Amino acid sequence: MTGLRTDLYELRMAASYLRRGMVEPATFSLFVRRLPHRRGFLVAAGLAEALAFLESFAFDHDELGYLRDVVGLDDPALAALAGLRFTGDVWAVPEGRAVFADEPLLEVTAPIAEAQLVETGVLNLVTFHTTVATKAARCRIAAGDAQLIDFAFRRTHGIEAGAGVARASAIAGFAATSDVEAARRYGLTPSGTMAHSYVEAFPDERAAFRAFAADFPVNPIFLVDTYDTPEGVRAAVDVVAELGLTGPVAVRLDSGDLAALARQSRAILDGAGLTRAKIVASGSLDEDVIAGLVAQGAPIDGYGVGTRMGVSYDAPSLDSAYKLVSVGDRPVLKLSPGKATLPGPKQVFRDPAGASGDVIGLRDEPPSAGREPLLVPVMRGGRLLAVADPAGEVRAARDRCRADLGWLPDAARRLTDPVPLVATVSPALAALHDRVRARLGY
Amino acid sequence: MTGLRTDLYELRMAASYLRRGMVEPATFSLFVRRLPHRRGFLVAAGLAEALAFLESFAFDHDELGYLRDVVGLDDPALAALAGLRFTGDVWAVPEGRAVFADEPLLEVTAPIAEAQLVETGVLNLVTFHTTVATKAARCRIAAGDAQLIDFAFRRTHGIEAGAGVARASAIAGFAATSDVEAARRYGLTPSGTMAHSYVEAFPDERAAFRAFAADFPVNPIFLVDTYDTPEGVRAAVDVVAELGLTGPVAVRLDSGDLAALARQSRAILDGAGLTRAKIVASGSLDEDVIAGLVAQGAPIDGYGVGTRMGVSYDAPSLDSAYKLVSVGDRPVLKLSPGKATLPGPKQVFRDPAGASGDVIGLRDEPPSAGREPLLVPVMRGGRLLAVADPAGEVRAARDRCRADLGWLPDAARRLTDPVPLVATVSPALAALHDRVRARLGY
Repeated sequence: MTGLRTDLYELRMAASYLRRGMVEPATFSLFVRRLPHRRGFLVAAGLAEALAFLESFAFDHDELGYLRDVVGLDDPALAALAGLRFTGDVWAVPEGRAVFADEPLLEVTAPIAEAQLVETGVLNLVTFHTTVATKAARCRIAAGDAQLIDFAFRRTHGIEAGAGVARASAIAGFAATSDVEAARRYGLTPSGTMAHSYVEAFPDERAAFRAFAADFPVNPIFLVDTYDTPEGVRAAVDVVAELGLTGPVAVRLDSGDLAALARQSRAILDGAGLTRAKIVASGSLDEDVIAGLVAQGAPIDGYGVGTRMGVSYDAPSLDSAYKLVSVGDRPVLKLSPGKATLPGPKQVFRDPAGASGDVIGLRDEPPSAGREPLLVPVMRGGRLLAVADPAGEVRAARDRCRADLGWLPDAARRLTDPVPLVATVSPALAALHDRVRARLGY
Repeated sequence: MTGLRTDLYELRMAASYLRRGMVEPATFSLFVRRLPHRRGFLVAAGLAEALAFLESFAFDHDELGYLRDVVGLDDPALAALAGLRFTGDVWAVPEGRAVFADEPLLEVTAPIAEAQLVETGVLNLVTFHTTVATKAARCRIAAGDAQLIDFAFRRTHGIEAGAGVARASAIAGFAATSDVEAARRYGLTPSGTMAHSYVEAFPDERAAFRAFAADFPVNPIFLVDTYDTPEGVRAAVDVVAELGLTGPVAVRLDSGDLAALARQSRAILDGAGLTRAKIVASGSLDEDVIAGLVAQGAPIDGYGVGTRMGVSYDAPSLDSAYKLVSVGDRPVLKLSPGKATLPGPKQVFRDPAGASGDVIGLRDEPPSAGREPLLVPVMRGGRLLAVADPAGEVRAARDRCRADLGWLPDAARRLTDPVPLVATVSPALAALHDRVRARLGY
C-alpha cells in the first residue's frame, strides 16, 4: 500500500486535523518558484503518475500498526486513517506543455487532511518528471532532425526512476528507450544492441559482429570503438558484406572525438557502398555536446543520451512547492522570506499567438479575449475524468510538447543564456493578495 | 517480476550467448572511473539493494510474452530465459566504506548471459546509493556535532528513490528521515512535525501551535517562520508556558538569514528560560551552507537536509562502469579512449594506518604485510552469504562509514578542493594488463 509514502509531518498534521474535525476542503497549489540556471522554460510532466498515486492512496493493516507502535498515533487518528482515501478534485496543466515560474502545474482541492497527506508523493512525482522532461526537451531542441534514444537507465536514481526517465524523455520527443520494462509499460520503442563486453567475449571483433548479425539480422547496430574505431567500422563493413545483409544497419561510436570519428566512419561506410548505413553516437552526451556536434556538421543520425539527461545533471531538481492557498472559503498565504505565496485557487491564461506573456489569475475569473486557460480538471471526487491509458497519454503529451517547443519565443527556447517568460499577476489576484495580507495584519 | 528491468542490449546479448552455448563464467567489475568535481572520496552504498535485485531476477510469463511479441526473441532464447536465475558469485566492498576511483566496488562472476543481464540493475543501484551516501557524508562532515535529518523525499527522483536516499543518508550518519515508509523498511527514526500549511490552516499562529502541542505534546517542533520568525518564536514560547510543557521542545527555521535568526531565536528562548529548547534549521541546505553556519557559530542543534543532498545537486551521478574483465580463464580489457579497462578479477588492498594509498591488485594475489583486502565474498551460487537484515545492515554500514570518515586523510576529507587518494596498480596486475594487450595486438 501507499499510505506511508509520505513525510512524517504530513501524517502528524493530518492526524491533528482529523482529531479536531477540521474537514473543510483546502486547496494546495503546486508550482516552481524559480527556474534553474540555464532553463528558459519547463515541460510539465508526471501528472499521470501523480494521479495514479492519488487513486491508490490508502493505509493497510501493517501500515496502521507501524503508525500505532512506532509513530505513536492514537486510536481515533488510526481509525480515521484506516478509512481514508483521496476524494478530492484536481486541476492540472496537461503533460507536455511549456510552463514558467510561479505558474500552478497542479491544484488539489480536498478535505485538508487528504490534501496534506498526498503532498509529498504528488510534489515528488511532478518535480522529478518535469525536471527530466525539461532536460530532455533541451536535448530535443539541440539535436535538430536527428533521432534521440534514452540510454539513462543504468545511472538513474534507482530502478523505478529509469522508467520515469524513459517516460519523461518520450514526452520530450525521444524516439526510443533502452529500458525494456518502461517500453512495455508506456508503449515505447525499446532500443539497443550490443555492449563492449559482447565484443570482448569473442576472440576478436569480427567474430563478435558476425555472431551478432547472424543472431539479429534485422537492423543490427555494431559498436565499433572497443579497440580502434576505424578498424571497427571496417570490420562491420566486412561482416555486412560477408553475411549479405541488405537491410538497415548502423554503427555506434561511444568514445573519442565523435565529430572526427563520425566523419571517418561515414567515409568508410560510403566507400564500401553502405551510404544508407546510419551512425549513432553515445557517451556522456547532453544538449551542449549534441549542439556542438550538430554545429560541426558531424554526420550523426542518432544520439543515445544517458546519464546527463536522466539525472538532469546541471539542474537535477526544481525549486518546486505545494502550498496551501485556501481553507474553506478563506484564501491564505505565507510571508516567509523568499518563499511568499499568492492566495486562492488559480488559472494560467496564455496568449496562443505568443505576443504577450502568461497571466496568472484566479481560477474563476473570466479569461481575457483570445487567451487559453492552461489548467483543466483531471480528477473529481477522487476519480479520474478520463480512463488511464499509459501509451495514449505519452503520445498526447509528446504532441503537446512538440507544439509548445515550436510556440516558445526564441529567447526562452535557446540553450545558452535563455530568458524565461515571466508571468504577470492579474488585477483580481493582486487585489486578493493585498486583502489577505491586510487581514493577517502584516 | 524483474526480468525486464534491464537495457534491451543486455537481453539481445544474453539471447545470443545462450543460443551459442556460451556458458563460460565471466567476471564483471563495477568501479568509478573518475570522481566528480568536489569529491575527495566516495562512500560505497547500495550493495544490499543490488543483492536483493540479483536474488529476485527472473522472467515471468507476461515478460516472456513481451520479449516474443515486441522484441522478437525466438523460442530457444525464450526457453533459456524462462528458467534463468542469477546463480553467480559476488565479491564486494561492504557498504559504508570509503573508496576511490578505479577501485572495484563489486565484482560479479556468473555464466556470461546472467552476468550481462543484471548489469543495468546492479550498476544503477550501486551508482545511485553511492552518489547519495557520498553527498550525505559531506554534510555529515560539515555539521560537526549537530544532528542531521533527511528531508529529501519530496524532491527525490521518484517515490522509490526517496527510500533509497533515506537509506544512503542513514549510512552516512543522518539520525532520522522524514520518509515514513523508508523508516519502517530500514528501521530508521521517522522525524517531522508541521508545515507552514498547518499554521495557515488555523486563524493565527498561536492557535496552530496550541493545537499541535495539545495533540503531540512529546517533543513538538514549532515551525516559526510562516509570517515573522521572532514573533513565531515568541508564540512558541507562550504556548509552551500556557500548556505547561516541561519536556523537550524545538523551533524550526526554514527561511531567511538562518545564522541571524538562530541567534535571535536562541536569545528569545533563553530569555524565557527555555535554555534546553533546540533550534533546527532547514531550507536549501547542503554541506557548504551548513559549514558556513557552523563557521559563524550559529546556535543550531539540527539540520533538515533535503533536495541538495537527496539528488546530490552538484554531482547527481558518478562515472561508474560495469566492465567485463574475464571470460572463462581469459582476462580481457577494452581500449576505448578515456574508457580503457584493467583485466582480471581484482582486490583492493588498504593500509589501515593510512600512511600510503590503496593498491589495486589481482584477487588471488597475496596482500602485502599489514594491508587489508576491501572486497569480501557476499554471494555464492546466487545465494546470500549472510541473512538479509535491512536494519542491521544499515547500522553496520553506518559504523563502517563513521570509522572510514575518521580514517580519511584531511586532504581527501575536506569539503573544498579535496584531493582524492589515487590507488596504484600492483605489479602483478600491471604485468597481466601488458600481456592481454599484447595478445590483442594493440
